[in-house]
Amino acid sequence: MALNRAGRDVPSQIDGYGPVIPFMGHDARKPEGNRAGGKLKATFNDRTDKTVKDIKEAIRASGLRSGMTVSFHHHLRNGDYVVNQVIDACAEMGIRDLTIFPTALFGVHKALIPHIKSGVISRIMGSVNGPIGQLASEGGLQSPVVLRSHGGRPRAVIAGDVKIDVAFIAAPSADRYGNLSGRLGRSACGSLGYAVTDADGADCVVAVTDNLIPFPLTPVSINQTKVDFVVVVDSIGDPAGIVSGTTQVTRDPMRLLIAHHAAALIESSPYFKEGLSFQTGAGGISLAVAAYVREVMRKRAIKGSFGLGGITSFFVDMLNEGLFERLMDVQSFDLVAVKSIAENLNHVEISADWYANPWNSGAVVNMLDTVVLGATEVDRHFNANVNTEADGALLHGIGGHQDTASGAKLTIITTPLLRGRIPCVVDDVYTVTTPGSVVDAIVTEFGVAINPLRQDLIDAAKEAGDVPLVTVDELAERARKTSGPMEPVATKDRIIGVVEWRDGSVIDVVRQLDR
Amino acid sequence: MALNRAGRDVPSQIDGYGPVIPFMGHDARKPEGNRAGGKLKATFNDRTDKTVKDIKEAIRASGLRSGMTVSFHHHLRNGDYVVNQVIDACAEMGIRDLTIFPTALFGVHKALIPHIKSGVISRIMGSVNGPIGQLASEGGLQSPVVLRSHGGRPRAVIAGDVKIDVAFIAAPSADRYGNLSGRLGRSACGSLGYAVTDADGADCVVAVTDNLIPFPLTPVSINQTKVDFVVVVDSIGDPAGIVSGTTQVTRDPMRLLIAHHAAALIESSPYFKEGLSFQTGAGGISLAVAAYVREVMRKRAIKGSFGLGGITSFFVDMLNEGLFERLMDVQSFDLVAVKSIAENLNHVEISADWYANPWNSGAVVNMLDTVVLGATEVDRHFNANVNTEADGALLHGIGGHQDTASGAKLTIITTPLLRGRIPCVVDDVYTVTTPGSVVDAIVTEFGVAINPLRQDLIDAAKEAGDVPLVTVDELAERARKTSGPMEPVATKDRIIGVVEWRDGSVIDVVRQLDR
Repeated sequence: MALNRAGRDVPSQIDGYGPVIPFMGHDARKPEGNRAGGKLKATFNDRTDKTVKDIKEAIRASGLRSGMTVSFHHHLRNGDYVVNQVIDACAEMGIRDLTIFPTALFGVHKALIPHIKSGVISRIMGSVNGPIGQLASEGGLQSPVVLRSHGGRPRAVIAGDVKIDVAFIAAPSADRYGNLSGRLGRSACGSLGYAVTDADGADCVVAVTDNLIPFPLTPVSINQTKVDFVVVVDSIGDPAGIVSGTTQVTRDPMRLLIAHHAAALIESSPYFKEGLSFQTGAGGISLAVAAYVREVMRKRAIKGSFGLGGITSFFVDMLNEGLFERLMDVQSFDLVAVKSIAENLNHVEISADWYANPWNSGAVVNMLDTVVLGATEVDRHFNANVNTEADGALLHGIGGHQDTASGAKLTIITTPLLRGRIPCVVDDVYTVTTPGSVVDAIVTEFGVAINPLRQDLIDAAKEAGDVPLVTVDELAERARKTSGPMEPVATKDRIIGVVEWRDGSVIDVVRQLDR
Repeated sequence: MALNRAGRDVPSQIDGYGPVIPFMGHDARKPEGNRAGGKLKATFNDRTDKTVKDIKEAIRASGLRSGMTVSFHHHLRNGDYVVNQVIDACAEMGIRDLTIFPTALFGVHKALIPHIKSGVISRIMGSVNGPIGQLASEGGLQSPVVLRSHGGRPRAVIAGDVKIDVAFIAAPSADRYGNLSGRLGRSACGSLGYAVTDADGADCVVAVTDNLIPFPLTPVSINQTKVDFVVVVDSIGDPAGIVSGTTQVTRDPMRLLIAHHAAALIESSPYFKEGLSFQTGAGGISLAVAAYVREVMRKRAIKGSFGLGGITSFFVDMLNEGLFERLMDVQSFDLVAVKSIAENLNHVEISADWYANPWNSGAVVNMLDTVVLGATEVDRHFNANVNTEADGALLHGIGGHQDTASGAKLTIITTPLLRGRIPCVVDDVYTVTTPGSVVDAIVTEFGVAINPLRQDLIDAAKEAGDVPLVTVDELAERARKTSGPMEPVATKDRIIGVVEWRDGSVIDVVRQLDR
């Protein structure tokens, strides 16, 4: 048994995945060779309309065959109709044994389960949020799910680890020559940042839209030089599932306390100053942290440089108030963000590559001061698990967790000490998503544990005086006492999930539940 | 002797160029394989400032060595200081035998001549406008100059024909992490479209700027993920040479007559209708054609879709007047165009790949209705020469000539019948830049010759009644009678210029002058 640098026992070869590159430290692996790109094509003026009549026609035209790899993006989130439509069509056309490479799947994609069972889909590389994750956890997929971060995924494409045969891009707007945008249309989703590298690396690109507009569509998210076919369908998604109305700050007092502690930590740090940059998630605690930070920025008359990540109305308000100069948006979470990216030149669409890929000349995460992240659990080594739940089920993707944790100067994980009777600060996380070497602090309602690697932050917090410092061991101890002894997760040997570190090495695996 | 499909005697191998793929027809060659990309790099948050202290430091950091290939763009035109500064630095550092791969060189680059003579530069792939073209014509370069069109050049990069070791990108604005823009700064040039594919394909990218602005610069022309080093210098160029004040319509009555005939031809064609698209050059006749077309568009209340190409104030006015919906801009010719692209969302920056590359999924030229081009001479086969002058000297680049001629539905070449005593319509052009198979009409002050391949246009022109139709043979005859017999160009056998068709095949060669 050889442990990788995250202390995990990962075999050197995994059935349905292949040879494993063991995780060797968060910035250790260096690439060789050159970027891979999609197929060269000659395109002349004898075909100035790329529209085809339906998805089946596009599949035929694309050359998609059994055994190939197809990619999708998740900007339409739980409102997406495109993945299901495409796979339904493949099934009807007798195409089987597909590897699907979505950025993420959601509840709406439970419609894929029959196609998994019948062998139309044999492998999933991508985040499996919810029902398909549950299915995978119970051994329902032929091959392990491969999880990659938002930056790790484009890295895998440009490094040639994943060859996309056909990319299907849900496009809220398109013109007949294949210029695509997420800004306009009844299914508008704002940024199309996750799809950009797919368009670059795929051998064939099919856009699926419900809003065909005159050529040339501008401004474009993905331009005509990469798009081969355009299919117009009745609807690419359900607007109610695509964007939430508005994202809300938590009202729960315990969660507000956590947020308050996190904000105090940020304010105590050397990164709270003119020109700061900041990312939070769209969760209630994260937004509450943003709200506290905003208050202090106003009070101390500090202006930020940029807000990053999945963008919410909260960050849009900060932009409009002048608290940020720019928003860098890989994913627009709510209606306000969608409207803002369409209208405000300082609200900038960025690709996942630009956002987070560790293997280019520099992603935005490297310029990030502070990120506030969540986790299902963290441990005494500051490792974070965002993939599996307490019962061992693989229910969540990595998102930008690894990338922002690696890039930011101050990485904070906020978590209640327990969720119900389940401890969230433990001795050892069940799955290592993000190693403790890039996590600077764990913030709970019972105090803030700063990673001993960051004595500078500990000193600054002590000096500030209002950060309730604790040790991570104290937190784990307290959680254990409250919860009482926990049953270990019972698993079979079979690996059903492979968690890649953003550089393509394997940081951990997830095994089939024994039920 | 084997002639290629343009009827030219081109050897199968050329010293200093390599094996020749003979031109086989304008849309004949199809690519194989996948797009080539630049080197993969791992970039983490331990280096958040890419600035280096000077050009020499950047050269050292880039790993540039003797024998390598360096690229440049020509958006700063005759105002550019960057090419000379970089090559001066290379010479001082003892680097030799460089292949330089500029999009184009101008008069200001005559400063490179000593470096050519001393062996610092051994090969030039790019347009050589003026003095270096003259030097090449007289045999002053070790290897033939390789000429590519605006679309053929990015094709060569993505097809892997040219591997750029280091791209030097003159950037009118940059931030410290390598986001670049042509819109802002005292050396603003508008679009940076020619440099985009260089940034994509080069193993190392060095930005040279005289205007460092806070991160994150937006909107960007080329983003940080492709840029490795940023050098701040006192000045990247002379604004007076970068952009002209305003571009002017000709006042010469003969040229106005040519423009008038061209406009009549356009109006007679099926492409003069709602939603038309249009490209002209920045020359006096071209602008006069645009002025006439604008008049008719106003009179007949026709609104265009897009104006394309190198953009002048003339097209900006048409955009602002609502005669175009969009401008697609690969190169901004004057101050008005620079200002417009910086402020107007409907004035869109496009890369040379997007503009004109025949080997992607579709360039804008394929959507173009009408293009008005010039030539140094045309012939009875409708072939056009834009590279060599009557004395056989290679003084001009291809520009977008091949690309727009191939892509547009109506390709018009305007030319006086003679320039001085030199006939411009001849039996056979001295150099074939663009084959007659993609040229639809030649327009002179003595009438309009439509290519017999386009009987539809001849019929439409006859029906319109105001297009003075002639045959190309009549034009050539008349030119010959006026000029009297011409001396043939005296050359040596040695090939000093290779004219690639946009697909990478060789359409013609240029031989050393015998003087």
